Amino acid sequence: MNKSKEILLAHGGGGTLMHDLIKNVIASRLSNPVLDRLDDSALLDTGGRLAFTTDSYVVRPLFFKGGDIGKLAVCGTVNDLAMQGAKPLAISLSFIIEEGFPLDDLKKIVKSVGSAVKAADVFVATGDLKVVERDGADKLFVNTSGIGSVRKDVNVSSHYAKVGDAVIINGYIADHGVSILCEREGLEFESPVKSDCAPLAGLTQAILSTTKRIHCMKDPTRGGLAAALNEIASSSRVSIEIEESAIPVRRATLAACEMLGLDPLVVANEGKVVVVCSETVASTVIRTMRKHKYGKASKIIGRIVNKGKPEVILGTTIGGSRIVDMPYGELLPRIC
Amino acid sequence: MNKSKEILLAHGGGGTLMHDLIKNVIASRLSNPVLDRLDDSALLDTGGRLAFTTDSYVVRPLFFKGGDIGKLAVCGTVNDLAMQGAKPLAISLSFIIEEGFPLDDLKKIVKSVGSAVKAADVFVATGDLKVVERDGADKLFVNTSGIGSVRKDVNVSSHYAKVGDAVIINGYIADHGVSILCEREGLEFESPVKSDCAPLAGLTQAILSTTKRIHCMKDPTRGGLAAALNEIASSSRVSIEIEESAIPVRRATLAACEMLGLDPLVVANEGKVVVVCSETVASTVIRTMRKHKYGKASKIIGRIVNKGKPEVILGTTIGGSRIVDMPYGELLPRIC
Repeated sequence: MNKSKEILLAHGGGGTLMHDLIKNVIASRLSNPVLDRLDDSALLDTGGRLAFTTDSYVVRPLFFKGGDIGKLAVCGTVNDLAMQGAKPLAISLSFIIEEGFPLDDLKKIVKSVGSAVKAADVFVATGDLKVVERDGADKLFVNTSGIGSVRKDVNVSSHYAKVGDAVIINGYIADHGVSILCEREGLEFESPVKSDCAPLAGLTQAILSTTKRIHCMKDPTRGGLAAALNEIASSSRVSIEIEESAIPVRRATLAACEMLGLDPLVVANEGKVVVVCSETVASTVIRTMRKHKYGKASKIIGRIVNKGKPEVILGTTIGGSRIVDMPYGELLPRIC
Repeated sequence: MNKSKEILLAHGGGGTLMHDLIKNVIASRLSNPVLDRLDDSALLDTGGRLAFTTDSYVVRPLFFKGGDIGKLAVCGTVNDLAMQGAKPLAISLSFIIEEGFPLDDLKKIVKSVGSAVKAADVFVATGDLKVVERDGADKLFVNTSGIGSVRKDVNVSSHYAKVGDAVIINGYIADHGVSILCEREGLEFESPVKSDCAPLAGLTQAILSTTKRIHCMKDPTRGGLAAALNEIASSSRVSIEIEESAIPVRRATLAACEMLGLDPLVVANEGKVVVVCSETVASTVIRTMRKHKYGKASKIIGRIVNKGKPEVILGTTIGGSRIVDMPYGELLPRIC
């Protein structure tokens, strides 16, 4: 663990530094069997099985191509529930607002929350609002927590990847991070990159209805595909081999990444899911996914290859291979 | 509604201005039968009955006499569940942290969360952490959301107060707000005022086990007892008469209020509950409450007197009476 006595921006980046902080400073002091799994949602038995998740959103700018902080907050939390195999039931909505924030912008954000909950087939059940003085916060932060129901026969977790499993993604990666960064840097491309921000519970529910052989689902948000795959590798103690040529990246996104010096594998997504399933059902799963609005570009991108040594290996387009590390710290602050 | 085109500090104060903002700007755009009740927790039917609540905490300073932001975040959310008659099951914990925040202070806060969840007989099921750049936030904010189970035969809500009901409080008011303000202003009194911050679910569960004739429970947080009673009056469309001489206020708290020019009725509490119950069971309820750690100074402070005209009337110590208005805006920013 990093020896800094202060919180660094890098602690929020979705990489090793954040995972160590959460594990060693927070979860260790609050340890219990539910929290200790550190999955995207907690899984509780309350009569039925209930998924429970929370996320705070500090994205900057608040409005970007393909979404805004309101849509992002709904989709992010719905997706954390979806990754647990849950059908989202309800979300909460809590604002921290800087004094002087334009009321019209708040209205726009709430309207966007409204459209997003409709699209995600969920509703806002409860909320809260705090105002802090000027300079006490940067404009507006949102927290959404969510609960969802999980069918008895659904058991997906980053811990359940098995050797031989196929690794699937539902489409083009890195669009969210690139769109935010372009917005922030005032970069304009001929075909502007839009955030992929989308609610995935419909897609994940469709996948789970197809077969019982889905082992993990994980959304590659902060830290990108690299972090998501490393988390699966580490939780399941397996090696994952992926093929660079198989990973869908839009031409404009790739161009932007090259210009900005970014590896698309570590750039955040907000409408992507990595599905790990038995090899035998992979083509059926792909068929199901491609029928769905948010799965049209679904592809197998790799396999689980070995037990014991958690690592992610990328077969490159030029025929070599390299280890894809867990990102260390902060690549793009305030991406979500 | 105030015509300002900007969010004011006063919008966060727990008064009329906040209620109007939440109702007209937020809830109106997200309307559904669960949210529209605007109770302390949402009540959901998910097989069993589930309470769901959220709160963000922006209190300043982070550490104060009687607690800190960690303890406050746990108690506040546990109490919102308790007010719905729920037994808290699990909470979530999400941090927004300013770059440069001392790691040792984070550890202290997490430790305090740990003690508080133990005291409240609940656990942290899931969490999140975001870091923003220096000056992007004032030190550290916390969001806790919570879920709890509600027995089938429990039906409490601010909407259910009935004419003739007794109004009870579980002890001394205004300690939380006064302690925060003293801390902030560097005021020292001979007997320093400590925040009353405490988890009330044990007490409320004990109350509900005593009788089925509990109609409302409400925690007088932002906006104090004045706001809580006005909310009950308005939701139930009743008048409430309270006796100034019956309301427990510590001498030191009263002295501080007089010095600071504050009305104890509008100062925030974090370990208080207003219980509205049938007059016939009031003495039994008081007996149950006084047996509990957080109910030793429980007292009847008033009655529900009339149907139709929502107002709160205070019988003063000098024999007169006055209307206690819903506070308008911000009395003490960042009190919770």
